[in-house]
Amino acid sequence: MNQAINISELPDFTPYKIEHLPVAVELGSELLTVIWNDDANSEFHYLWLRDNCACAGCVTPLSCEQVFEICDVPLDIAPSKVTIADDGRLLVTWDNDQHISRFHPGWLRSHCYSVQARAKRYQAPKIWDKARICEQLPLHQYEQVMQDDLALLDWLRDQRDFGIALIKGVDTSVGTVAKVANRISFIRETNFGVLFDVKAKPNANSAAYTTLRLPLHTDLPTRELQPGLQFLHCLINDAGGGESRLVDGFKIADHMRQHFPAEFKALSTIAMEFRNTDKDSDYRFSGPALVLDSKGDVVEIRLANFLRGPLDLPAEQVIPFYRGYRCFMTLTRQASFQFYYRLEPGDLVVFDNRRVLHARNAFDLQQGERHLQGCYVDRDELMSRIRVLERVIAIPIA
Amino acid sequence: MNQAINISELPDFTPYKIEHLPVAVELGSELLTVIWNDDANSEFHYLWLRDNCACAGCVTPLSCEQVFEICDVPLDIAPSKVTIADDGRLLVTWDNDQHISRFHPGWLRSHCYSVQARAKRYQAPKIWDKARICEQLPLHQYEQVMQDDLALLDWLRDQRDFGIALIKGVDTSVGTVAKVANRISFIRETNFGVLFDVKAKPNANSAAYTTLRLPLHTDLPTRELQPGLQFLHCLINDAGGGESRLVDGFKIADHMRQHFPAEFKALSTIAMEFRNTDKDSDYRFSGPALVLDSKGDVVEIRLANFLRGPLDLPAEQVIPFYRGYRCFMTLTRQASFQFYYRLEPGDLVVFDNRRVLHARNAFDLQQGERHLQGCYVDRDELMSRIRVLERVIAIPIA
Repeated sequence: MNQAINISELPDFTPYKIEHLPVAVELGSELLTVIWNDDANSEFHYLWLRDNCACAGCVTPLSCEQVFEICDVPLDIAPSKVTIADDGRLLVTWDNDQHISRFHPGWLRSHCYSVQARAKRYQAPKIWDKARICEQLPLHQYEQVMQDDLALLDWLRDQRDFGIALIKGVDTSVGTVAKVANRISFIRETNFGVLFDVKAKPNANSAAYTTLRLPLHTDLPTRELQPGLQFLHCLINDAGGGESRLVDGFKIADHMRQHFPAEFKALSTIAMEFRNTDKDSDYRFSGPALVLDSKGDVVEIRLANFLRGPLDLPAEQVIPFYRGYRCFMTLTRQASFQFYYRLEPGDLVVFDNRRVLHARNAFDLQQGERHLQGCYVDRDELMSRIRVLERVIAIPIA
Repeated sequence: MNQAINISELPDFTPYKIEHLPVAVELGSELLTVIWNDDANSEFHYLWLRDNCACAGCVTPLSCEQVFEICDVPLDIAPSKVTIADDGRLLVTWDNDQHISRFHPGWLRSHCYSVQARAKRYQAPKIWDKARICEQLPLHQYEQVMQDDLALLDWLRDQRDFGIALIKGVDTSVGTVAKVANRISFIRETNFGVLFDVKAKPNANSAAYTTLRLPLHTDLPTRELQPGLQFLHCLINDAGGGESRLVDGFKIADHMRQHFPAEFKALSTIAMEFRNTDKDSDYRFSGPALVLDSKGDVVEIRLANFLRGPLDLPAEQVIPFYRGYRCFMTLTRQASFQFYYRLEPGDLVVFDNRRVLHARNAFDLQQGERHLQGCYVDRDELMSRIRVLERVIAIPIA
């Protein structure tokens, strides 16, 4: 029952444990029902099954990609025969051309799309306010993250769930932040470069490069895809002030939804304008501050007061927008939502830039220097690395 | 009336011509109406005006970014005085703290958000089928694009409007494609590298690197943000076959909307699964094939048959999805939509990967080698470069 399987039998590289076996099938007009040995049922449409045939004729072994196209079989395709093999595999012979598809029971069960199975697969983020994050802030160690894949996976799961983690003991030499980021993947380049140095600069092209206080914001809301993870590595922090404040935007959005539903609706539906103009660039984006998925869950925050452009809206949306925006920004200022932290040399804070708003107090260079080095890695890369690391965990090699 | 203005007076780097002047204002309860000398009217909400104050106190000259926050003034802010200066500037004194905001008439008129003004700013894409693109395919010359900013702007406007252009006479040395891409900006890196070589490879990790026929598709639909512009530079093409086929996905979507509304609706609302798995990566994305903006216009196509994963949907959406998907894919096969082209050495075809589907026929290496080199640049970078180049055009230096 714990038989690991050869990946060549499957349309992907993930191993699937066989934990349940099919005991019977029932054929309907457009789908079949698999009855499992734990009494669960799964319904699979014939088109879905035909589409997922993983035989070498349908998925080329050259690149493990599908060459079969579903528009080349009849819309009303159905099996002429379905059997359950002794090893639990489902064998389906199709009525149009007698093509045979084999389905691995571990794969099939994992892809059941019943309401219950889909609900079980959903992973909710761990949303925090000041009290929760002060108690549960994920802490990781540089040496372990760099050398041990299990420690790496632990860290990355925290990033996914909490949207924030602190890595301690990071070598304070310039460029180290890239080495940590590369444990996930390549770095997302922007017009500020591959790595950026946060320190006061002459001719600053961003408020980040002044000593000014920055209000809570996400970085690069002016880009269609805001950068995912933001890395901030502290090399030197002898200046006065400059403390970091971090707020879980999902928490603020939740609070708004409960207590200020009209403001929540405005901010999740009315498009703001974002602008970042410089001598050689002029980035703009139009979109709401709160991004919802098709289920209505908040999946992204896009907000930086200092990177906004003039609203370009139907007149009747202007006041509702400002009500929503003022409500959100006022909430971000409440101490009960804010995680307040002073970065020390060797600290690397990593947060989901599309969820966790960040800010810093003004700082004073008379007391000493302040130098952070940062970079971005996108969510796609984070999730890909987690999935690859989990392949090994799923069926331990020992 | 054609007075160019100093950028330091404005919240961005764009110059604004003064083509109309305000002649009167009317103050309402929450907005004021500007009456212009061409009899047009513009309504501006008080909050909107206060939010767009570009004085050095509200927008820091250090980085040209806003430091004022709109939640720091009363929601019912109103002017205590409004005057029109001799030079046409609108001077507003605010009732809460007597702060004074000055508005440049060219800037103000450009940002009018009346229904008419907003409709006028909208730029529709130039949608094509085979007949139109065979007649109007934008052709550009390598030397000009590399050396002349006006030729560069011409090319980039074609990319924005048609979603495709062909650059002829490109130096066939390896890496030249990056030099052309860098005329816009930096290159979007992916797990396939900064530049990718399209030729048949042993141990291909993508169907692109085999000799197989590829059906019409967009690249990297498995990424949250599909790459924007795709560059394909032909260095060698002595192989048999391998012709390129390109289809304007916006045209197919338009056709579907008109002739197959139920299928259009399904494909624009039901999420597909996209997967690209390899030994070291596992990219996934869930989303509809046709992406609409808030007005219902199609702004993106996401589709590659060979990068799909098993649908993970409420059961009642499965058949509607397959009807929609089969409809779209069948339409892409119609010759009347396809631009058919054989790349010659020195050709560089650039297309909007999020709009134009591309495909190639199978090729045969017995007749000779085939080598294309490619890369991606995102839409953000394209649009930024166009805006910067247009600053110069708006007020010619001569």
